Amino acid sequence: MTTKPWSLLECCQHFSAAGIQHITIWRNVLAELSLTEAAKMVQDHALQVTSLCRGGFFPSKNASKRREAIDDNKLAIDQAAAVGAPVVVLVCGADRGQTLVESRQQIQDGITELLPYAEANQVKLAIEPLHPMYADDRSAVNTLEQANAMAEALGSSWVGVALDVYHLWWDPNLQTEIQRCGKQGNLLAFHVCDWKTPTTDLVLDRGLMGEGCIDIQQIRSWVEATGFSGPNEVEIFSNIYWADDQKDYLKRIIEAYRQHC
Amino acid sequence: MTTKPWSLLECCQHFSAAGIQHITIWRNVLAELSLTEAAKMVQDHALQVTSLCRGGFFPSKNASKRREAIDDNKLAIDQAAAVGAPVVVLVCGADRGQTLVESRQQIQDGITELLPYAEANQVKLAIEPLHPMYADDRSAVNTLEQANAMAEALGSSWVGVALDVYHLWWDPNLQTEIQRCGKQGNLLAFHVCDWKTPTTDLVLDRGLMGEGCIDIQQIRSWVEATGFSGPNEVEIFSNIYWADDQKDYLKRIIEAYRQHC
Repeated sequence: MTTKPWSLLECCQHFSAAGIQHITIWRNVLAELSLTEAAKMVQDHALQVTSLCRGGFFPSKNASKRREAIDDNKLAIDQAAAVGAPVVVLVCGADRGQTLVESRQQIQDGITELLPYAEANQVKLAIEPLHPMYADDRSAVNTLEQANAMAEALGSSWVGVALDVYHLWWDPNLQTEIQRCGKQGNLLAFHVCDWKTPTTDLVLDRGLMGEGCIDIQQIRSWVEATGFSGPNEVEIFSNIYWADDQKDYLKRIIEAYRQHC
Repeated sequence: MTTKPWSLLECCQHFSAAGIQHITIWRNVLAELSLTEAAKMVQDHALQVTSLCRGGFFPSKNASKRREAIDDNKLAIDQAAAVGAPVVVLVCGADRGQTLVESRQQIQDGITELLPYAEANQVKLAIEPLHPMYADDRSAVNTLEQANAMAEALGSSWVGVALDVYHLWWDPNLQTEIQRCGKQGNLLAFHVCDWKTPTTDLVLDRGLMGEGCIDIQQIRSWVEATGFSGPNEVEIFSNIYWADDQKDYLKRIIEAYRQHC
């Protein structure tokens, strides 16, 4: 998604040529090619799949929509297994027609229902807390504390959390909560980018690392102190960068990563 | 500020005619008229001043700027005393050239230095936690938990917190933290508006009560359960509503308040 204008094949070619070893696959690209083709593409370029983005979106006032969400998450697990993704990242959603407490319960219920299927397919589920500015509809889970508490309540080694600095950097309890999820073995993914000032769009104006105010190195040090050894994943949604030449942009990403992560 | 296109005199006239009994004065209007004139205006229209907005902005890497901020906050206290405002609302600021931990310490140090002056002038200081989307530069205090902890650490009856539903509605710990600040006698102000979906501007796209996803009545019930009996203050920053006829808009505010608060 960071280099959204590219097809999966272009991503694989350019990432691989640049020495990048991992890729996250977003489900929209799987609409255009078969799972076998996608799996072959990443293997042919010696890339490992970090995760599949994204499942989740459990909450709804409407029970049949909640049912559809479960089915769609099972499909996501199938897809993850097929392309070799060890994790499905869950964007947990909120239904603004009900309270956040209700949405949160539906998220927990939805994951509970999915866990046997996740285990059977050997795919983990990562609850990703999103920034509180998305609490209206994108996510009812907005702090690492909440995600940790939910993962612990679910009590399965098939569920954990995904940590994105963009969503969580401001949280005064971040270091403590990173230690907590590390201790539980629940830290499944680590995403980096930066928060620009000013930010002109709530979704599509993320910054390159170093362009904003997030102390990524500090947060990474907390993450690695837990023993986390997974890939550090650059995830930037940006109308500005998507309009650039993606080859130049990829070079800038790599430079920014080397300097600021 | 909610009816920004109006002068203070127009606000006083229209609010008073509509049966509103309180007004918060923003400092920008005091650039255009003397404190005596402003005080007379609100008195002539039988309005009570809820608070003066806004002091704060303590953090800076630059010590002389921190010094200037203290002086400016003393001026705000003078102005509050002169117009009959019992409270100065503090927007605490952040300097993105340093960590949030440093900014937070500078906020606490700044307030510590101001407290004797606040007490001497019989004006309270209200720490207003702002939404985490403002942690880059507008505010290093982003949850009620932080504001409560800071007010308690300062340990003076001249400092407390201001609670705005727009900033805090998403917080899973909100009810607990409202109880906490109520117990301490630290709840000095309560602001209402709504969070629209989609929100198209990070600052100037707030909604009328009922237009968004915030359960204002629920939060108000928590606030009033603490014994809070101050005014419920409508605070909407909106390019859309500021472009409307302000008399019509005021009617809509009153209707929305009656229905959704």
